[in-house]
Amino acid sequence: MTLHSEIFEQPERLGQLLSAQRKTVETIAQAIRARDVQYAFLAARGTSDNAGRYANYLWGAMNGIPLALAAPSLFTYYQQPPKLRGALVVGISQSGQSPDIVSVLAEGRRQGCPTLAITNAPESPLAAAADFVLDIQAGPERAVAATKTYTAELMAIAMLSAALASSEARWQELSQVPAWAEQALKTDAAIGQAAQRYRYMQQCVVLGRGYNYATDFEWALKLKELTCVEAEPYSSADFQHGPIAMVGGGFPVFSVAPEGKIFDSMLRMLGHLRNDLSAELVVISNAPQALALAQIPIPIPANIPEWLTPLVCILPAQLFAYHLTLAKGYDAETPRTIHKVTETH
Amino acid sequence: MTLHSEIFEQPERLGQLLSAQRKTVETIAQAIRARDVQYAFLAARGTSDNAGRYANYLWGAMNGIPLALAAPSLFTYYQQPPKLRGALVVGISQSGQSPDIVSVLAEGRRQGCPTLAITNAPESPLAAAADFVLDIQAGPERAVAATKTYTAELMAIAMLSAALASSEARWQELSQVPAWAEQALKTDAAIGQAAQRYRYMQQCVVLGRGYNYATDFEWALKLKELTCVEAEPYSSADFQHGPIAMVGGGFPVFSVAPEGKIFDSMLRMLGHLRNDLSAELVVISNAPQALALAQIPIPIPANIPEWLTPLVCILPAQLFAYHLTLAKGYDAETPRTIHKVTETH
Repeated sequence: MTLHSEIFEQPERLGQLLSAQRKTVETIAQAIRARDVQYAFLAARGTSDNAGRYANYLWGAMNGIPLALAAPSLFTYYQQPPKLRGALVVGISQSGQSPDIVSVLAEGRRQGCPTLAITNAPESPLAAAADFVLDIQAGPERAVAATKTYTAELMAIAMLSAALASSEARWQELSQVPAWAEQALKTDAAIGQAAQRYRYMQQCVVLGRGYNYATDFEWALKLKELTCVEAEPYSSADFQHGPIAMVGGGFPVFSVAPEGKIFDSMLRMLGHLRNDLSAELVVISNAPQALALAQIPIPIPANIPEWLTPLVCILPAQLFAYHLTLAKGYDAETPRTIHKVTETH
Repeated sequence: MTLHSEIFEQPERLGQLLSAQRKTVETIAQAIRARDVQYAFLAARGTSDNAGRYANYLWGAMNGIPLALAAPSLFTYYQQPPKLRGALVVGISQSGQSPDIVSVLAEGRRQGCPTLAITNAPESPLAAAADFVLDIQAGPERAVAATKTYTAELMAIAMLSAALASSEARWQELSQVPAWAEQALKTDAAIGQAAQRYRYMQQCVVLGRGYNYATDFEWALKLKELTCVEAEPYSSADFQHGPIAMVGGGFPVFSVAPEGKIFDSMLRMLGHLRNDLSAELVVISNAPQALALAQIPIPIPANIPEWLTPLVCILPAQLFAYHLTLAKGYDAETPRTIHKVTETH
């Protein structure tokens, strides 16, 4: 039950992170603003890479900061790192141990760039290589599948965005996340029932876009890691121009479609999938029209600002992956497909 | 037979592109050098996005230019584009028609950045939105699956790298690509035989890393589009720390493993997959040790500099996807899963 209880720790952990680290984040933001940062250069793998997808949208939209993804092997095998002038070099890693992520930060520092580690291990090699350390304070994560460290990484990314924007309104919105998260977890029993329906599902697609492109990838990753379902994540934009052709009657499409700027386009696609293609829909949303289209509607609280929906939408997605794991007779604590620390060189 | 003949056009098209466009590329490189470019900001989708993966490694390693990937919906739905100061804004699109790719270049120009279109359609909206146009001159692509426009995009990316480095040695190496490509296509009949073996394959993984991370993704994309096989691409680094657990006896692993800086790590993984896990290996390589490990070894010419191996390795991969399409009884000319022009907004 470690995984299930870690999923349920999230509202409290997020609240603690928000209050304990706000000052640190504001100090970091001030130091970053004092440097002439033109873009962020990010190194991350797996779940942390999905957190990076959130940063790509949020920092881009709210803070005007474009994000480049490091190709770690340029720093290790090839030893031909790019010139990082103008970059804020960011490493995201729960364990802070991955040597190739550490090497990207070390090179950033060598080139004189400001470096930031977002990690659950403030004594780790990653933290040691960074000028600034944002401790996500998720507590020890004992389940092999990452859940609370993912949402804590999202929270850290969101806090930094609010601090860089010096926006009290955004901090105010952030303060409501723990309560929304608490409410989203009330879907637990219903999801436990609904997951039974997918006992023999072997393949599905997961759709999201914009801020929830991250949720899309993280939901698919949890399904792959825990349930061995071939869950393929797609941007709904890419999906509609090709892979949608694989959708026949009953084909399972999981979707993250909260209200926001891209909702109308998501709703059109969901309507087409259900009404024209007879797809099977599992939909996480706070919009009645989207939920009404789904065989399995998963409601989240209303009125969450779009930029914060990824912190809430992922919770029922984690619960879904957890319950489907049990329904399929697998062990949620020791999935055979993942290791906790990625020691890639 | 359109697809097959377009695959075979590639050596000649690449040679023509190299000679016809060198001057233009050098002029563009000079103009880029005159601007204070700190990183490249890239917009692309599908096959062109895979060409972008090549640029990420090549421009990073050879030219010191980091690459950021645009999130096109920030430019369209959200209308909150990031600040692009210091960026060379690049759009790659065969058709030059995708409105969201065009909108990224238009915004780059609005912000005063140098903008570059790499396209097969020099009269397209994408070209019209760019300061510099690199016409990849692949000729009309009639098959729905992109082949010759992909290698032409890679060639354009490689030519720009050589021009930015002002390296005559690199131009010399580039001039040998058409001959290497010609030789690589001689595997056609053998691949036609070998593909029979995978008539009933439903799932496989494709592995690559470094420069051939692009080949990895493009091979998987061609398999998905044409043969409906669930072909999942992985960086060999990510693969060994998790998904490798799905490999049991006979599980098909396709791999791109030419000689170069990451070859030793690829060879270790291939040895483990074959000797310890009894995987089924299809390997594209010019290293006898790697080929010896494969049930289906696909040789490419020896002594290709690693940075140019993606332009050669993809050819037998395209042939493999083509022949497997026929072996499975599908129509290679009108695959049901893709459209030629992506009109994403």
